[in-house]
Amino acid sequence: MSSSFGQLFVVSTFGESHGPAVGVIVDGLPPGITIDVADIQRDLDRRRPGQSSLTTSRTEADRVEILSGVFEGVSLGTPIAMLVRNTDARAHDYAALKDVFRPGHADYTYEQKYGVRDHRGGGRSSGRETTGRVAAGALAKAALATVGVSITGGTVQVGPIRTDQRDWDEVEKNPVRCPDREAAGRMAELIASIRDQKDSVGGVVEVVARGVPPGWGDPTMAKLDAMLGAAMLSIPATKGVEIGGGFAMCGLHGSETNDVFDGTRFLTNFAGGISGGISNGADVVVRVAVRPATSIGKTQTAATPQGGTTTIEIQGRHDPCICPRVVPVAESMMAITLADAWLRQRAVRGRPA
Amino acid sequence: MSSSFGQLFVVSTFGESHGPAVGVIVDGLPPGITIDVADIQRDLDRRRPGQSSLTTSRTEADRVEILSGVFEGVSLGTPIAMLVRNTDARAHDYAALKDVFRPGHADYTYEQKYGVRDHRGGGRSSGRETTGRVAAGALAKAALATVGVSITGGTVQVGPIRTDQRDWDEVEKNPVRCPDREAAGRMAELIASIRDQKDSVGGVVEVVARGVPPGWGDPTMAKLDAMLGAAMLSIPATKGVEIGGGFAMCGLHGSETNDVFDGTRFLTNFAGGISGGISNGADVVVRVAVRPATSIGKTQTAATPQGGTTTIEIQGRHDPCICPRVVPVAESMMAITLADAWLRQRAVRGRPA
Amino acid sequence: MSSSFGQLFVVSTFGESHGPAVGVIVDGLPPGITIDVADIQRDLDRRRPGQSSLTTSRTEADRVEILSGVFEGVSLGTPIAMLVRNTDARAHDYAALKDVFRPGHADYTYEQKYGVRDHRGGGRSSGRETTGRVAAGALAKAALATVGVSITGGTVQVGPIRTDQRDWDEVEKNPVRCPDREAAGRMAELIASIRDQKDSVGGVVEVVARGVPPGWGDPTMAKLDAMLGAAMLSIPATKGVEIGGGFAMCGLHGSETNDVFDGTRFLTNFAGGISGGISNGADVVVRVAVRPATSIGKTQTAATPQGGTTTIEIQGRHDPCICPRVVPVAESMMAITLADAWLRQRAVRGRPA
Amino acid sequence: MSSSFGQLFVVSTFGESHGPAVGVIVDGLPPGITIDVADIQRDLDRRRPGQSSLTTSRTEADRVEILSGVFEGVSLGTPIAMLVRNTDARAHDYAALKDVFRPGHADYTYEQKYGVRDHRGGGRSSGRETTGRVAAGALAKAALATVGVSITGGTVQVGPIRTDQRDWDEVEKNPVRCPDREAAGRMAELIASIRDQKDSVGGVVEVVARGVPPGWGDPTMAKLDAMLGAAMLSIPATKGVEIGGGFAMCGLHGSETNDVFDGTRFLTNFAGGISGGISNGADVVVRVAVRPATSIGKTQTAATPQGGTTTIEIQGRHDPCICPRVVPVAESMMAITLADAWLRQRAVRGRPA
Repeated sequence: MSSSFGQLFVVSTFGESHGPAVGVIVDGLPPGITIDVADIQRDLDRRRPGQSSLTTSRTEADRVEILSGVFEGVSLGTPIAMLVRNTDARAHDYAALKDVFRPGHADYTYEQKYGVRDHRGGGRSSGRETTGRVAAGALAKAALATVGVSITGGTVQVGPIRTDQRDWDEVEKNPVRCPDREAAGRMAELIASIRDQKDSVGGVVEVVARGVPPGWGDPTMAKLDAMLGAAMLSIPATKGVEIGGGFAMCGLHGSETNDVFDGTRFLTNFAGGISGGISNGADVVVRVAVRPATSIGKTQTAATPQGGTTTIEIQGRHDPCICPRVVPVAESMMAITLADAWLRQRAVRGRPA
Repeated sequence: MSSSFGQLFVVSTFGESHGPAVGVIVDGLPPGITIDVADIQRDLDRRRPGQSSLTTSRTEADRVEILSGVFEGVSLGTPIAMLVRNTDARAHDYAALKDVFRPGHADYTYEQKYGVRDHRGGGRSSGRETTGRVAAGALAKAALATVGVSITGGTVQVGPIRTDQRDWDEVEKNPVRCPDREAAGRMAELIASIRDQKDSVGGVVEVVARGVPPGWGDPTMAKLDAMLGAAMLSIPATKGVEIGGGFAMCGLHGSETNDVFDGTRFLTNFAGGISGGISNGADVVVRVAVRPATSIGKTQTAATPQGGTTTIEIQGRHDPCICPRVVPVAESMMAITLADAWLRQRAVRGRPA
Repeated sequence: MSSSFGQLFVVSTFGESHGPAVGVIVDGLPPGITIDVADIQRDLDRRRPGQSSLTTSRTEADRVEILSGVFEGVSLGTPIAMLVRNTDARAHDYAALKDVFRPGHADYTYEQKYGVRDHRGGGRSSGRETTGRVAAGALAKAALATVGVSITGGTVQVGPIRTDQRDWDEVEKNPVRCPDREAAGRMAELIASIRDQKDSVGGVVEVVARGVPPGWGDPTMAKLDAMLGAAMLSIPATKGVEIGGGFAMCGLHGSETNDVFDGTRFLTNFAGGISGGISNGADVVVRVAVRPATSIGKTQTAATPQGGTTTIEIQGRHDPCICPRVVPVAESMMAITLADAWLRQRAVRGRPA
Repeated sequence: MSSSFGQLFVVSTFGESHGPAVGVIVDGLPPGITIDVADIQRDLDRRRPGQSSLTTSRTEADRVEILSGVFEGVSLGTPIAMLVRNTDARAHDYAALKDVFRPGHADYTYEQKYGVRDHRGGGRSSGRETTGRVAAGALAKAALATVGVSITGGTVQVGPIRTDQRDWDEVEKNPVRCPDREAAGRMAELIASIRDQKDSVGGVVEVVARGVPPGWGDPTMAKLDAMLGAAMLSIPATKGVEIGGGFAMCGLHGSETNDVFDGTRFLTNFAGGISGGISNGADVVVRVAVRPATSIGKTQTAATPQGGTTTIEIQGRHDPCICPRVVPVAESMMAITLADAWLRQRAVRGRPA
């Protein structure tokens, strides 16, 4: 299914950017998990537009409504449908976009794939689709918490500025969501500057899962690396993913990158917590490459559905750097992936965790 | 399913490194495709051990037998099972490994996941599992060729040596499978040197698909990027994947990375041929990070199943750099992914391609 | 996934009987299909409670809202979410049911499976879940109509009264939905009598698809018979299904039941339009056994969660014979199954139909 | 996938009747299950041709070879591939069938679906495909035995002769596999008589699972009834399936068919062990309608690929009644279905059973 992720913890999103609503069904959350709608809302608020001067000014309250699957505050084991109404959908902002394929956007490919498209704000290709993912991710986090797994993410690079510091408590204290207060300041300045140039800039988001026991994941096609790779590269505007040591390991030797295991713990974590596709008990560490947002105000050349070209200056409300808003989405996709792996391992071994 | 890949073009491998056989079922190859077993064998020969002094000296003929789904040289549309017998399975080389978890290997995680394992040569975690993938990939390539899609791969980095040259005709002329004759020579020297040090080295493999029409792939969870990401990260020893501009885009601006489309073609290819998860008609370009092989002869500290540690010098026959042999596997996984996307798009639009 | 049906035309329902809403996501409807919400509503009205004196008097308007996937009256190819609010949810009617397992109901098995349940009106086990199926079925019917396939169903047996007449135009003219006016009258009398006895009665619903071209369905595990079997037996209160000649063929000879094909058409239809799991061009004919509704007003012995027994007279509003309301549900499940088979065959052959 | 069954216990068969081999991959058998190849062979022997004068005289030893997934007699948790070579494949018997569509067979529909077919003995549509199912079923039975579930089947009707006796110990003592010694004699006589008339006769096979705990199965689309329905209707030559009371319930009242549960056990079993799609702890009872075999020696009218008609007297070696050989296949499909449901419930609750 094109809009679903997972085998046992199955997340299916729906909705266009400027249609009536966006939302999600989560099928497979185990029964008996306490569900607090405030927790879901908190993560949605971290994703929603208009949360700081560094993000788009589209104002969506993004209030979530649970339609099913929860009774007296507890999951039933049945599908949980969640709905967020689109309220600030200024479709008229986008009327001009009917006759142009925005550079870097999916306008052209949707037209080629489907022969029809909702041009308003990108329709389903809009980042707004990730609203449902974040609501689902909040449920996955709640489920994983019952077996001691927690997930944290942050922006670790913006343009040329990168940091190796991982002060996770810092993340929610700065608008960039960077786990390094000092670097965050410089990143914010850069983003503001890029915004003023009507341009955008890329970055890297890192997500870490702690407490994952050994044994989750599958050994060949459905390696945990592979599932996390699919999860991250399904997020709009991502073009790369790496686990643990990632691309940097290509320049190293096996004697350097074979993590030593002393029978209790791993002394290094080049494997990013996954050996042979299966979690090994160390932190699961994933980084995702976020390209510069494709919606920019600068004048660009663009093709038209009629086969010619024109110039375009994209109006509307956009993010100069989407990393801060990708953080909760990437956390959610990791939580969803791990929840699925957890349930799969329960099937394999018949144990709680 | 842990050992299957694809939704409509479904590839399911089986087999342990030192069991009776390895193999694959391909379910979903369209009927009427001409199947030449010599083409399958050619790709298997590119993957098999012992092909050059840079690879392991295990000698497996890797002769493939087609068991079903092909009649009078043409695919029937029914499952195609293919079998390769293990012949040079020197299990005694591995008897000592029963009581140790090799560093960087999946020995520990298999034990944790299943509570039982075939310790001989890594069992199912061995790279030998990819034999079936390559046989399946040859069928996918044959299918894609009927709609004008071709796939080529090569080693573009070994250790610190990297090249930007893409002379694809050069690839099969050097043992590194590098699309740059000059760089290939330096890479081969480096690999030989690493081999003599009983160590291993990592690298990067790039795969390119030409002729992919716009419209393949799905817009949200099953983005073509995501499927390719899963495909590549399911290959043993891979820890990163990037599409098109990949991680390098993180340091750039949208005004630089928005590929200009003039209505006919894209003037740049930062998107790697995929916009919004859907192919846009440009070359599909994927790079995969291959970590240094975990099997090395150097003395290492290793944990034991009994909870202590020991030292180990891995005997047996190993690859100092697996990139040359990953090339046909990565090509195969891209072919399988694209064949699946092709069939999915046929379902969406009901057109031949 | 426990709540989804189909591989390419995927229907995922959600909702409890007395929760905020019931609904469905349809993922995979091809783009460009004209969607008329009035057509969906018409089928929902055929399923909804309170439509005649023979059905439960629960009054639900069952107004459907399309939340996504349709733009300017045409399908986009993206997921279509549809929502029906529960309005007449008299949960207090069911408060007493918290402490009893109703005979024949799923109360006990839900408790055993999940360890928690929404006892109000059966929660998710209520026939109300089929609301989403009918909305999805209306979309499947619209899609199939574009390739000349139409689907009709009716009640052909109620208790001991059965008919061999198939006057399909008659179905919507009588409250039993029987394709035989005369038999319909006797069936209605029987149902009224059973209702007055506070009891219920079973029956048989038949569904026929016309215009299905040869070639739909798969040859082994996913035979069209098998998919239709799963579709029908997923409807609440069904305990049998037969295709074409069905159980009656067990008493006959091959020389009687081998349908003669004259190169143009089949002279008989014992195969029910499916040979070797694949449609053969004849009408696809399926009958489903509907057990007597389990909710009855008569005094019954029932077990309690505490391990004892009690007596119960089920209050609330119930159907003495659910066949008339199963008809649109069975039609929907057949339409969904065939839409999926249609898309699968498009993938196999790359042709419009 | 067209040739796979199951979500967590996944069975994928391959092979044509007169190709090199038939076989199966089982992916998802839990690790640590003791596998005795003799048990697999025993069930294959119950299915194989030539076992009595009532079955086809094709002589296939049907020796199974395990290719993977088992190490030192114990399952590894990895895919188990099993292979049976075709030895008595007299393709010349079938050369004449290239130019005719046998009545009741899948020749015409395969041609329509794929545009190409292996005409030799029906190719993949042959009952020979069920060899792999039986091998897989033996593994499923072994897995289920570890949690106390056992499965037994028998022929309960042949033509007009039916029995209500269920003396399961009798089944393997008569060639009809009827759980009623006296009825078995009459059935055998009828089958011999039909065989001498060059005709065939249908029947009913019943399969019962004992020891299934409450809680297996899913509540809506993937009801245990639905999965068993798909499993049974995927067996060649089946055209009906019923659970528990089945079609006979249509003529009864709710007050008769609501099984009374006294808190410990069910006093009747109209539900066939499944309430609301979930096992309730009673025996799971399924009956499947087996049509008369379509291969008969009598003269029949048949269509040709050229669009005309001809007459045909099917030569080769055929079964006058396939019920005795369907018994192990139906048992296998039930075992596979229940093994899958078992693993799914382990995922839901995280318990061994």
